Amino acid sequence: MRPRKAYEWLLSHSREIACLESMRSLLIWDQRVCMPAGGHSHRAVQFGALAELLSARTTDPKIGEMLERVEESRLVEDRLCPEAVNVREWRRSFDRAVKVPRTLAVELARAAAEGELAWEVFRPRNDWKSFMPYLKRIVELKRNEASLLDSGNEFYDALLNDYEPGETAENIEPLFGVLKEALLRILHCIENSNVTPDRERFPRHYPEPAQEALAREAVRLTGYDFNCGRMDPAAHPFTATMGPGDVRITTRYDTSCFGMAFFSALHETGHGLYDQGLDSGHWGTPMGRAASMGIHESQALTWENWVGRSLGFWEFFYPRACRFFPHLAESSLESFHLMVNDVRRSLIRTEADEVTYNLHVMLRFELELALIRYAVEVRDLPELWEHKTREYLGLSVPDHSRGLMQDIHWAEGSIGYFPVYVLGNLYAAQLFARAEDELGDLDASFSRGEFAPFIDWLRSNVHLHGSRYRPRELLKAVTGEDLNPKYFIAYLVRKYGALYGFDMSSVRAARRPEKLCKTDSPAPACTK
Amino acid sequence: MRPRKAYEWLLSHSREIACLESMRSLLIWDQRVCMPAGGHSHRAVQFGALAELLSARTTDPKIGEMLERVEESRLVEDRLCPEAVNVREWRRSFDRAVKVPRTLAVELARAAAEGELAWEVFRPRNDWKSFMPYLKRIVELKRNEASLLDSGNEFYDALLNDYEPGETAENIEPLFGVLKEALLRILHCIENSNVTPDRERFPRHYPEPAQEALAREAVRLTGYDFNCGRMDPAAHPFTATMGPGDVRITTRYDTSCFGMAFFSALHETGHGLYDQGLDSGHWGTPMGRAASMGIHESQALTWENWVGRSLGFWEFFYPRACRFFPHLAESSLESFHLMVNDVRRSLIRTEADEVTYNLHVMLRFELELALIRYAVEVRDLPELWEHKTREYLGLSVPDHSRGLMQDIHWAEGSIGYFPVYVLGNLYAAQLFARAEDELGDLDASFSRGEFAPFIDWLRSNVHLHGSRYRPRELLKAVTGEDLNPKYFIAYLVRKYGALYGFDMSSVRAARRPEKLCKTDSPAPACTK
Repeated sequence: MRPRKAYEWLLSHSREIACLESMRSLLIWDQRVCMPAGGHSHRAVQFGALAELLSARTTDPKIGEMLERVEESRLVEDRLCPEAVNVREWRRSFDRAVKVPRTLAVELARAAAEGELAWEVFRPRNDWKSFMPYLKRIVELKRNEASLLDSGNEFYDALLNDYEPGETAENIEPLFGVLKEALLRILHCIENSNVTPDRERFPRHYPEPAQEALAREAVRLTGYDFNCGRMDPAAHPFTATMGPGDVRITTRYDTSCFGMAFFSALHETGHGLYDQGLDSGHWGTPMGRAASMGIHESQALTWENWVGRSLGFWEFFYPRACRFFPHLAESSLESFHLMVNDVRRSLIRTEADEVTYNLHVMLRFELELALIRYAVEVRDLPELWEHKTREYLGLSVPDHSRGLMQDIHWAEGSIGYFPVYVLGNLYAAQLFARAEDELGDLDASFSRGEFAPFIDWLRSNVHLHGSRYRPRELLKAVTGEDLNPKYFIAYLVRKYGALYGFDMSSVRAARRPEKLCKTDSPAPACTK
Repeated sequence: MRPRKAYEWLLSHSREIACLESMRSLLIWDQRVCMPAGGHSHRAVQFGALAELLSARTTDPKIGEMLERVEESRLVEDRLCPEAVNVREWRRSFDRAVKVPRTLAVELARAAAEGELAWEVFRPRNDWKSFMPYLKRIVELKRNEASLLDSGNEFYDALLNDYEPGETAENIEPLFGVLKEALLRILHCIENSNVTPDRERFPRHYPEPAQEALAREAVRLTGYDFNCGRMDPAAHPFTATMGPGDVRITTRYDTSCFGMAFFSALHETGHGLYDQGLDSGHWGTPMGRAASMGIHESQALTWENWVGRSLGFWEFFYPRACRFFPHLAESSLESFHLMVNDVRRSLIRTEADEVTYNLHVMLRFELELALIRYAVEVRDLPELWEHKTREYLGLSVPDHSRGLMQDIHWAEGSIGYFPVYVLGNLYAAQLFARAEDELGDLDASFSRGEFAPFIDWLRSNVHLHGSRYRPRELLKAVTGEDLNPKYFIAYLVRKYGALYGFDMSSVRAARRPEKLCKTDSPAPACTK
């Protein structure tokens, strides 16, 4: 068979798999947004049936045969042409898929489903003892999976690469080390400033319909296309792509809090814009798919934080927000902007601010890395969690539900995912800096309500590339530089320095606190 | 292989097919209720992929082999045991599936999709000329399909049997003849009475939220379980079953009309109750599936008309409706009841009353039968439609969109479906009469808000049987009698006689009008 024909077989096979995956997306979206409680057990049957269909297709030995026919051909000579990119990624997926025996895949899927359920049941009850066996099972299976997938000297990388192709623990550790140092110094400067947001002056009630209307107005500004999407409430906000032309976002409402729904919506919009911006001509192939979860997260964070929490954005948008919530007008734009950028050490990752958020993630990364390295066991986690929370955040953990049971990730088998959140911040900062080099002061254009140039820039520099580049290659291709944490640090210092009154020299001078002292009371949930 | 093992293979194969079908249900429900416009073209890709998967499974030759091993065995000796019922229906489906070559099935699916789209585009424009080629193509393919499926001397039966197993045109024609005669006499009595609903006295505006709340209250009374379902707005109301524990209904709102949303909701609830009442232990097999579309329709009509439009129901429910729409209280219960049972000749089937509705359906049945018999051609339809509308309804057809382009059925390939609507009425009447024999005066119990005995009766006499009996066998088993139109006729005479002041003797004495004269203006849409 000629390489072109083999390639075409692979193309059509890839699209068949993508089509089944798009049905799974709908099953997931519907389960979280629409499905009545009674539907759960049959939904599990449907997921099982789809998993069978997908597994048969992703491990089809014909993929290997076809790849061999095309891999050495002229069709893939230019390593950045669509054919070469697709073949590279198909090879990667196929090699991974066939390394994991069917029985293990099935066991993992089952353990993940059971783990998720156990998490939902035992977390609210703070019942670590009952939850632990489920987590143990997951860790055992993931270690097993990692050892089968492993192609180097670090099992963890095999899991990490599922989300962030080409990334390694070896590269992440020093990166996080530099960042941690800087974050603790910045936090020190903020906590030692005499600026604090005047929380009491803000309204305590934000009716849901007004929140929704305001969020929709903001989402529209970003260029998100409601003709090819929709926004619904969900307990845990997420974005689901049903296929080209159908990318749905969700958000979560808390009537006592301005920021919950608003920033969740902007975050998910960032995800949604990425998927809406992919090249639909390449749909169903790696060229039409996101480069990685880290790049995906960078797009979400860009809209949530770089845009949504910027002063420029609120210069433009504050009058609008005041129309929906007239009490807001009693505060100044500046104090509102400080309010939505309130930095406080707290216990819950998902409610943390831009500075401390990364500390939460690093703590998890270190623990999951140690788990996969067999350096620690699941039974040791509570003690380690307490220890690291004191070290990173200077807080004591009052209970497991606000401690190591707060996230669903490990329970559902997502080990190796956490670094993605910090990488997302680093990518976002470096890309944003490059965009400003090319487009000029973005904060100023946001303040005039001008978002289109930035949207176009993201689309052509990030979205349209799909998986053409590996994440770090993409950074290099777009910014001309390797991944560098200095952009994120500089962004934080500039932004929070302006808000809390310090500059880079004070950060440099700040002593990194050897051990943060425990604050009396952790920040209450959702004050931004 | 032993019969038991063969049976188990069939069971699991049947459930696999049902699981794929349940995904298709979700794709359909989502398309009509949630999907943004941009999702259409990818949704078609998903339907195509599912159709491929389903086609491979429903025509799998192994089904034939397994059936042969079990058909002569002791396992199916008792013809009403679950095994025998399932084997009987699997055989029927398999024989049908293999008779239609793949190419024809694919062509039919494509023509149906194109026909549906053409209907959506050309109907509002009243453009028969552009629509006609699509309908021609459908009729050609359905004739072809019918001839391949045929096993007797009437091609039409092969299509009809897709919806109503065991039913024949030969049986339907005399049945409809008797009914038509009676309906025209009843209509004559109504039109010659001096009772007319006082339409002007009723409010002209019914806000959607109040309509929805009222409909939900009524739906709850029927025993429909919202934990295993939900109700949403849809342009064309329908019910979709995603699997056991997830049966969703829809309704359509018209703020200028009380009845549209309310009776649509009750109608769909009847469908929903049937599916919720099926034996979930038999899910994915014929024993866990509705007996036929006609029986399904009977359940919908039971709740919409026998319950929802009864005097007893409104004796109980009118005070509730007045709470939501206080202006209603200005009219008496009796005039309200007359209002929702307003009988008027009109052009649109879906908006017709209980008496004239069946005339609309008979007209369509006669035309589709003639089409499949090659007795008429698509080009002749407009003239025939006009002719029959004059004959049956005494009205002239002002345009095609209110004429033969008003229904989607033929456009989407559903030829042989229409009789189901009238059969549904006949089944409903005969079953209801039997329920009253056993439970006593149901109207009286509805007036006390007692619905549970009737719900239980339907569940154990109809729902739980699944496809154990063919439709007419079910009637016989439950009522002890063959299908008999006298129950429906007696129901109409009793109910409308009381409303319009006539009795059976006046109906008998009424001359069937040779040709109904054309009324000056057809009834406006939605006045009930």
